[in-house]
Amino acid sequence: MSFGLKFRLKDNCYSPKNFYLWRLKFKKKRRNMNDFVMPSDLLQRQARLQSAIRQAGADGCLLSADVNLYYMTGRVFNGYYYLPSEGSPCCFVRRPKEKPIENTIFIRKPEEIADSFADAGRAFPEKMLLETDELSYNECMRLLSVFRHPEAGNATALLRRLREIKTPWEIERLRISARQHAVTYAEIASCFRPGMTDLQFQAEIERRMRLNGSVGVFSVFGSNMNIFMGSVLTGSNAEAASPFDFALGGGGQTPLCPIGANGTPIREGMAVMVDMAGNYTEYLTDMTRVFAVGRLPELACRAHQLSIDIQDDMMQNARPGTACADIYNRALAMVKAAGLEAYFMGTKQQAKFVGHGIGLQINEPPVFTPRSDEVLLPGMTFALEPKFVIPNVGAVGIENSFLVTETGVEKLTLFEEKIITM
Amino acid sequence: MSFGLKFRLKDNCYSPKNFYLWRLKFKKKRRNMNDFVMPSDLLQRQARLQSAIRQAGADGCLLSADVNLYYMTGRVFNGYYYLPSEGSPCCFVRRPKEKPIENTIFIRKPEEIADSFADAGRAFPEKMLLETDELSYNECMRLLSVFRHPEAGNATALLRRLREIKTPWEIERLRISARQHAVTYAEIASCFRPGMTDLQFQAEIERRMRLNGSVGVFSVFGSNMNIFMGSVLTGSNAEAASPFDFALGGGGQTPLCPIGANGTPIREGMAVMVDMAGNYTEYLTDMTRVFAVGRLPELACRAHQLSIDIQDDMMQNARPGTACADIYNRALAMVKAAGLEAYFMGTKQQAKFVGHGIGLQINEPPVFTPRSDEVLLPGMTFALEPKFVIPNVGAVGIENSFLVTETGVEKLTLFEEKIITM
Repeated sequence: MSFGLKFRLKDNCYSPKNFYLWRLKFKKKRRNMNDFVMPSDLLQRQARLQSAIRQAGADGCLLSADVNLYYMTGRVFNGYYYLPSEGSPCCFVRRPKEKPIENTIFIRKPEEIADSFADAGRAFPEKMLLETDELSYNECMRLLSVFRHPEAGNATALLRRLREIKTPWEIERLRISARQHAVTYAEIASCFRPGMTDLQFQAEIERRMRLNGSVGVFSVFGSNMNIFMGSVLTGSNAEAASPFDFALGGGGQTPLCPIGANGTPIREGMAVMVDMAGNYTEYLTDMTRVFAVGRLPELACRAHQLSIDIQDDMMQNARPGTACADIYNRALAMVKAAGLEAYFMGTKQQAKFVGHGIGLQINEPPVFTPRSDEVLLPGMTFALEPKFVIPNVGAVGIENSFLVTETGVEKLTLFEEKIITM
Repeated sequence: MSFGLKFRLKDNCYSPKNFYLWRLKFKKKRRNMNDFVMPSDLLQRQARLQSAIRQAGADGCLLSADVNLYYMTGRVFNGYYYLPSEGSPCCFVRRPKEKPIENTIFIRKPEEIADSFADAGRAFPEKMLLETDELSYNECMRLLSVFRHPEAGNATALLRRLREIKTPWEIERLRISARQHAVTYAEIASCFRPGMTDLQFQAEIERRMRLNGSVGVFSVFGSNMNIFMGSVLTGSNAEAASPFDFALGGGGQTPLCPIGANGTPIREGMAVMVDMAGNYTEYLTDMTRVFAVGRLPELACRAHQLSIDIQDDMMQNARPGTACADIYNRALAMVKAAGLEAYFMGTKQQAKFVGHGIGLQINEPPVFTPRSDEVLLPGMTFALEPKFVIPNVGAVGIENSFLVTETGVEKLTLFEEKIITM
């Protein structure tokens, strides 16, 4: 089915020729062409999404969340991307007045989308996929009205599932993030000065991150998920329970953002867990290391070594087809065997996962929980973070980012894993 | 109307005695009691919200957005705050296992709220206010189902309106932010080294912010509004149009976050506009200053002076009762008289507002647009930002934060307003 004259396939900017022209046009503005998505990736995503739309029995999919717009067009704009189950996509753009794809119609309000459908002689979808986990209730109701009240399906869940499997180009972007992540981590110990608080220490790490190319902000899925560039947890602050769905908590600086560093002075015998973002490209890596002044108590060292052992066990056993629940359960079995269950993933409040997908957002599927029904697939990227909170010492354990290959898993974030003395 | 046994008024933690006990309990964990909301403020907010619920003809209001939970309880948690049109509030908390108010029920899923209503012999609301601009479609549908499909009213718009008028305690928090904001701005010129890019310069400013107490992250209303600690715009990058609803744009570092600094080397004759957040408490101030190496061209200096003149004109004329549209229109008239319309609030893409409310979020109502129907009221706080983009030079103009007093407006962000030479 075609989308009328305005939506002819030859207008599709993803053709190699059009992409070349588009590249030239944007080259003047952008210094790094790596910033743009591979045209073959965009074509492939479009085909995968279209196939998923048909599988869901829907007639089209409308997207407007930043990460999804970027995923489908390589650009973020204020507006909508519409992909019918057959034929080519169209963008409806409020701002800026630039065309993310050739088939772009500038609008002031979503009601104008209906006019363009009428102009193109296009039937309104009977079932439409909308980002029902991301769009606000009011915006979604308005769009359903614009599209004459189709049945609504969940495009959020669908896109999160599609984004799970990374292409070689996406993996290359992750590798760049991972490399820069390690470059920053190698500078962390030198940021420490005796007498510093966790916040002063974190400010110096943040500066190194930014000078090494961190884009600062990063995307987290979920409405009440606030975090700033990552988390530095020192001593007993690691025990503070958080409202958010991250692995560990921390009291934070204000009651409006109760997570992470809280001004604790860094003293000898405290574990300082650094879990700062790998946001050096659009694709995020996740990595945690533990720093300490002097030697930590035996229990903390033992728990830290167990975290490394859990990781090594996962690396030996995980491959395409491995159940995500098994990864959690094997980890938990090792923790129980060592008698460290009371410290695993927190004390007062224990997170019930040991790893999660990574990509354009820091918390993508799959999630390694006891009851996950997902299995590893080649091209998935994930972070494993078996962590322990030792009362009066702090948090220990490591986190690394991994790629699922055809035969196993490959570690992307390569840096010293033992407790690092400052 | 009472809320059943579990919801007796004497259990309300906002009573001075309960607050004192609560304070003692939290004192162990928190170092700064200023972080907690004044109990009299919480009582007053509850009364105002309850009056607004009745005015809307609703039976109750359910809140779960971070800023609204904080506004009503002084805490952020994963869960819900319910206020009936009469009687006392109740919190339904998933995480952490701490009671934000005395009347707290711990839940695992929202469906358990229905059970607690049944247990308390409480009638389900026929009309309920929900954060329909903030809750996702799916979450809102689920809550409507839990509450047996009441008519839904917009709690987002209502809370934004209530939050517009600040109490003396809130104003004190804003003053602290404003003071620290100015402390950081006084250090900015010394952050500059010849040969720096905008991003390197910004990294040094961010570090000073953090060392001066910035909480890093800050809250912006709207789903696709990404920004990182603020914006540094240098030279022609100020002309880049953005998808976001901020005053100016900038190309940004990646196409996933197209706003702000983009790696432009800072050279003589370029304007460097610094608009970094005043997030030193939960309450945000907004302030912009222009820095330059050497002298800027005459046109840029003239536009910058006009920005100061527009501010001074506003300060002489604005008072309770002043129409927000008038503030925009007076500014625009001055711009037209000076023949600088082509540069006002951007070039290719011009923002159609000249100021906005500030508070727990950086973009609160009122907004100073040509067609705003709001008027200034005592206790409102806002930022005025008449800015100009001069091609090949950059952005000029100032922004300051103001409080509407009983008789006029008071400037909160006090720092040198002329172009600052580095």
